[in-house]
Amino acid sequence: MFDDVTVIGAGRAGSTIAARLRERGVVLRDDAELRLLCVPDRTIPEVARTIERGPWVAHVSGGTALSALEPHTTRFSVHPLQTLTTRRGAEQLDGAWGAVTAETPEANERAVWLAQTLGLRPFALADDARALYHAGASIASNFLVTLHRAAAELFEQAGVPSEALVPLMERTIENGFELTGPIARGDWETVERHHAALRGSDLEPLYSALAEATRP
Amino acid sequence: MFDDVTVIGAGRAGSTIAARLRERGVVLRDDAELRLLCVPDRTIPEVARTIERGPWVAHVSGGTALSALEPHTTRFSVHPLQTLTTRRGAEQLDGAWGAVTAETPEANERAVWLAQTLGLRPFALADDARALYHAGASIASNFLVTLHRAAAELFEQAGVPSEALVPLMERTIENGFELTGPIARGDWETVERHHAALRGSDLEPLYSALAEATRP
Repeated sequence: MFDDVTVIGAGRAGSTIAARLRERGVVLRDDAELRLLCVPDRTIPEVARTIERGPWVAHVSGGTALSALEPHTTRFSVHPLQTLTTRRGAEQLDGAWGAVTAETPEANERAVWLAQTLGLRPFALADDARALYHAGASIASNFLVTLHRAAAELFEQAGVPSEALVPLMERTIENGFELTGPIARGDWETVERHHAALRGSDLEPLYSALAEATRP
Repeated sequence: MFDDVTVIGAGRAGSTIAARLRERGVVLRDDAELRLLCVPDRTIPEVARTIERGPWVAHVSGGTALSALEPHTTRFSVHPLQTLTTRRGAEQLDGAWGAVTAETPEANERAVWLAQTLGLRPFALADDARALYHAGASIASNFLVTLHRAAAELFEQAGVPSEALVPLMERTIENGFELTGPIARGDWETVERHHAALRGSDLEPLYSALAEATRP
């Protein structure tokens, strides 16, 4: 659909996307038919304004409205719903989903093509639902890091190896997020012992908010 | 080390442990050399008191002190650090770690034997560090379920498929819990948009506590 693409930005997203497009035989060059903005969210409007009107313009941000691409009207976005690291290459897009936002059938066709060319499973995201979507993604990934940090800190304090947490967390996902443990059993004495162990620590408010949200 | 074991309790832990011991050729029978209590935490003291003194007595609880096994003194505990489901069998212990608590070298030798026979990687857990350890385990597994629920709820509200969260969460673990996303980038405008999208919802206090804990 696009024979050539200009990838703007070489961070985690830009370098991964460029590698995948290259693998798929898409030519990467300046002034291409599609200008793909892989720059930090807050700089999208200013970069978009530097592009002369004419080509398709798109961004890969989950939290940024299409209006950030003004004055362009031939526009769309594809957000790879994945945590990307510079230690991996294009293969890290495999198996991930991609949020596609477009205002016209033509734009949608191009957005879906891009998602599929990147190896993403596309789904439609309404422009005005982005904040909810992106908050959900952030909770699922970024706050998972926070949970692990908190648990690892407690394991360290208890003198036990924090790598033991990994098979537990992996299996929690693999088991379809089935709730087990004291809250699932209604064992409030054990929950109270956790509270007591954390009293006065930085982790106490976090534990309380999470325990409250977990109760049936 | 033990040729026969009495497994008391047939819940998630008891049935999984019994299946594994049987696989390993251990005879399961009443009045065996080891009485292994796989009963709800709060009932451990009362079940322990029904056992005549003489055999080894152990429990598999992460959050319960060895003193719950009184009056027995030939005692220990092995806690499989894994979320167990009745939909799986003995194989769900493979790759998991096991917290071993013992007061004497003899008890420790038996506890390590049991952990290894179950297929667990044993590590020592001090009896007085249990509350911290168990709070850590609960954060890592039970609250991971809560995160997923919260994220899936937002995805539903946004009209996007919640199964798209799974590859994201799996990769977050696989990437060694490397933090990406708006907080890692110091992008507070995006974080503020998440806050605004959640304002007034049940998830707002949870998001705030987690965002606060995630900030550097």
